[in-house]
Amino acid sequence: MSDNKETQAAATPATSLQDIIAHAKEYGFVFPSSEIYDGLQAVYDYGQNGVELKNNLKTAWWKAMTQLHDEVVGIDASIFMHPLTWKASGHVDSFNDPMIDNKDSKKRYRADQLLEGKAEQYEKAGDEARGQALRNELGRLQGAEDMEGLRDLIIAEGIVCPISGTSNWTEVRQFNLMFSTQVGSVAEDASLIYLRPETAQGIFVNFLNVQKTGRMKVPFGIAQIGKAFRNEIVARQFTFRMREFEQMEMQYFVRPGTEMEWYEKWRDTRLAFHKAIGLPAAKLKFHIHEKLAHYANAAVDIEYEFPFGFREMEGIHSRTDFDLKSHQELSKKKQQYFDNDINPETGKPYGNYIPYVVETSVGADRLFLATFCNAFTKETVGEGETQKERTYLKLHPALAPIKAAVFPLVRKDGLPEKAEQIVKSLRSEFRVIMEERDAIGKRYTRQDLIGTPYCIAVDYQTLEDDTVTIRHRDTTEQERVHISELKAKIGHAVSMERILELL
Amino acid sequence: MSDNKETQAAATPATSLQDIIAHAKEYGFVFPSSEIYDGLQAVYDYGQNGVELKNNLKTAWWKAMTQLHDEVVGIDASIFMHPLTWKASGHVDSFNDPMIDNKDSKKRYRADQLLEGKAEQYEKAGDEARGQALRNELGRLQGAEDMEGLRDLIIAEGIVCPISGTSNWTEVRQFNLMFSTQVGSVAEDASLIYLRPETAQGIFVNFLNVQKTGRMKVPFGIAQIGKAFRNEIVARQFTFRMREFEQMEMQYFVRPGTEMEWYEKWRDTRLAFHKAIGLPAAKLKFHIHEKLAHYANAAVDIEYEFPFGFREMEGIHSRTDFDLKSHQELSKKKQQYFDNDINPETGKPYGNYIPYVVETSVGADRLFLATFCNAFTKETVGEGETQKERTYLKLHPALAPIKAAVFPLVRKDGLPEKAEQIVKSLRSEFRVIMEERDAIGKRYTRQDLIGTPYCIAVDYQTLEDDTVTIRHRDTTEQERVHISELKAKIGHAVSMERILELL
Repeated sequence: MSDNKETQAAATPATSLQDIIAHAKEYGFVFPSSEIYDGLQAVYDYGQNGVELKNNLKTAWWKAMTQLHDEVVGIDASIFMHPLTWKASGHVDSFNDPMIDNKDSKKRYRADQLLEGKAEQYEKAGDEARGQALRNELGRLQGAEDMEGLRDLIIAEGIVCPISGTSNWTEVRQFNLMFSTQVGSVAEDASLIYLRPETAQGIFVNFLNVQKTGRMKVPFGIAQIGKAFRNEIVARQFTFRMREFEQMEMQYFVRPGTEMEWYEKWRDTRLAFHKAIGLPAAKLKFHIHEKLAHYANAAVDIEYEFPFGFREMEGIHSRTDFDLKSHQELSKKKQQYFDNDINPETGKPYGNYIPYVVETSVGADRLFLATFCNAFTKETVGEGETQKERTYLKLHPALAPIKAAVFPLVRKDGLPEKAEQIVKSLRSEFRVIMEERDAIGKRYTRQDLIGTPYCIAVDYQTLEDDTVTIRHRDTTEQERVHISELKAKIGHAVSMERILELL
Repeated sequence: MSDNKETQAAATPATSLQDIIAHAKEYGFVFPSSEIYDGLQAVYDYGQNGVELKNNLKTAWWKAMTQLHDEVVGIDASIFMHPLTWKASGHVDSFNDPMIDNKDSKKRYRADQLLEGKAEQYEKAGDEARGQALRNELGRLQGAEDMEGLRDLIIAEGIVCPISGTSNWTEVRQFNLMFSTQVGSVAEDASLIYLRPETAQGIFVNFLNVQKTGRMKVPFGIAQIGKAFRNEIVARQFTFRMREFEQMEMQYFVRPGTEMEWYEKWRDTRLAFHKAIGLPAAKLKFHIHEKLAHYANAAVDIEYEFPFGFREMEGIHSRTDFDLKSHQELSKKKQQYFDNDINPETGKPYGNYIPYVVETSVGADRLFLATFCNAFTKETVGEGETQKERTYLKLHPALAPIKAAVFPLVRKDGLPEKAEQIVKSLRSEFRVIMEERDAIGKRYTRQDLIGTPYCIAVDYQTLEDDTVTIRHRDTTEQERVHISELKAKIGHAVSMERILELL
């Protein structure tokens, strides 16, 4: 036992994903979807506290992107888009996973993952060369979209189904990850449409609408928050990989040749955002892509250290003019911008071009998960017999679901009425609730568990001099203040401005 | 010509839906979806100004429901739900339209709408009795789900296809309005799921999760904003009826027997909201349902007078325990609440029951359309030769996409730099932009057209004494203020608090 708080905190065992899932469920942050029907795989619902935290994160992102940048505006495109959109983007033809079934177990696997697993086995056994050779061959076959070759390789490598133990495999088939549905009635006018697998295309098809009606000058950006859907075969890790998820994307349109400077600028701007909302530098890192997608000429992920390791939270991609060019070709509508800035080399305007695009794309659900994991704090407090463990969510006050909870010490003598007055005087400015159940200590604990930064206690002295006690979540320290100071004292501390001022 | 402003305003011709659609497109509020591919019927995208207005409306609703009511909390359930949800709710079996095709024109119609049209013809021709008789018969056949009867009635009434002019009709078939898709891979584990046709069920299936983890006591409410999807055959009237749309719903769980008191309370609370955001009382009215849905024991719409007439914007429904009871039956999970309040009649706690539900359900896109139509103002200003027409959006400042625009009078002598300083000092608090293009009068006009309540002009005097001109959108009046007063002067006026304080 030590009275050094830091040592004690360090001694606390690392948080597991199971701790996170359990806390998220128990305190109304995340529920399995349709739980009364035993759930729906890889789909989750945000509960009464989760929705507030998630909305606050979305608001922080939205304001950081649009409010702090005159040249970035938002849109909200629909989930349903014309099917040609996904032809142009390449999703109809190439947004596939190669799937293979074992005929005995009837289980389905991703062919590439079976082979990658085998390569990993070689490497773990010390045979780096053989592992690498297998990876190379896998890459070659995938590049050539050679499904037969993938199957042959699985059989040649002696890979068996972990359930049946046999290598009685079907063919490998391409499986498109887009969900589709029929729009229109079942007659001849019905047509197949997709649920968007990314929000970016909603921005691309509106590029000229926004540029013209908003009189935007390149460079400028369009930001969007919205749902996207992918029929993931292997979905896992809680809200990290879901079939229905929410993206926060921004496409920044630039003059060709200047994209690397904007790519670097946005990479740094986005990292600064994650720090401003409270994620520590030590848990964030860049991961530069060596293998680039067909549309990109540079790409970096911002990774966060989740309980299951460093994983992608956000991607910053230099997407060239791939998307706008494809849409131009397919729609036969020019996707050009006339740049009347003077090119110093020619002395004439830069003229017409298809802009290049730098994209920032963050998963709202991943950002939620990162923020939640980071806030989840277990500390040993006190000494000797009074020592106990304390759990709380150390959320940035602007992100906390509830900003303040007002506690009348007892349920009589006019204390509840006084507390109610305080709630009413504050609630048009921020989210404040009243709680009169349980002993006061238990009330503090409960607010700690959902991350409420301030608890306000109303006692008999309040009736005399209009002062209350503010108790601070992180330090558990208390201070006595006059009711008239509450709005100023708490209002700014819990406002989104506190995050925006750091950017 | 008159110098009486009111008379002039009254002389302005009524706004048509075409005016609204054109203005919405031209100034970046609403674009047809996937327009470069010639659009997608009954689907729209919100542009750079539309998304801000819509988000502000959503925020106003969210805060009015949750922040102002301790006993109302939010959730965000996924669009994908377990398919049994829609069995329980009745959507799988009864969310149908009866469709009939004309074999010559190949056109499809809603059988009930053909018959209603005929009844209207009778009534317009003065034969009220015959019209009413036809409506009665239609109601009877629909109640009995008698598709053959509907077809016979269409033929007996001599209804012909307006395109082919023939009565060469197919059978009448039930057409379900839910969109469906396959989740999982195409093998034996794939299953049919639906895109939710309403957000309400996401609340019902989470009723106990929220009640327990939030320790909610009846009466309490759960609020939600989210997308819903209906495969409408006849979608029309701009964003009024779309295939993809957004709902803002709240389910209020009450003790059985008390539902009518809450129904009345919420009906009035919701009407007050619409007035608080600026919709005039004269354009709002209640429409009490005479024919009730199978789950309801009372229902009223709040209608707004759109350019195409009074139409439903919000519904307040007393839904009884229909939904929770159905979910209990199908899921075999008790959907009960233990009420330990004392029943004065028995002297004992009320005990276990399935709560009754009062629902408020407003279409976010309809509220957007109502707000936009109401704000759209054309006025004749000035007299004689200087007389001209002025168009502006008279939006509540808290709802306006941009709160303030800062104009340096000229693009030199340090005025743009001064303007930029002002923008930077304000933008962590609200959305403020700089505009230096065009003559100053044109800049005012442009901001009027998108509803910006304040324009701030920076001129040579500003460099001397740090004062600027604030020009007010609605009156076009100007006042000179010190830069240090801007934050206080504009900040509160454009904040959501201004709306919440009215509630």
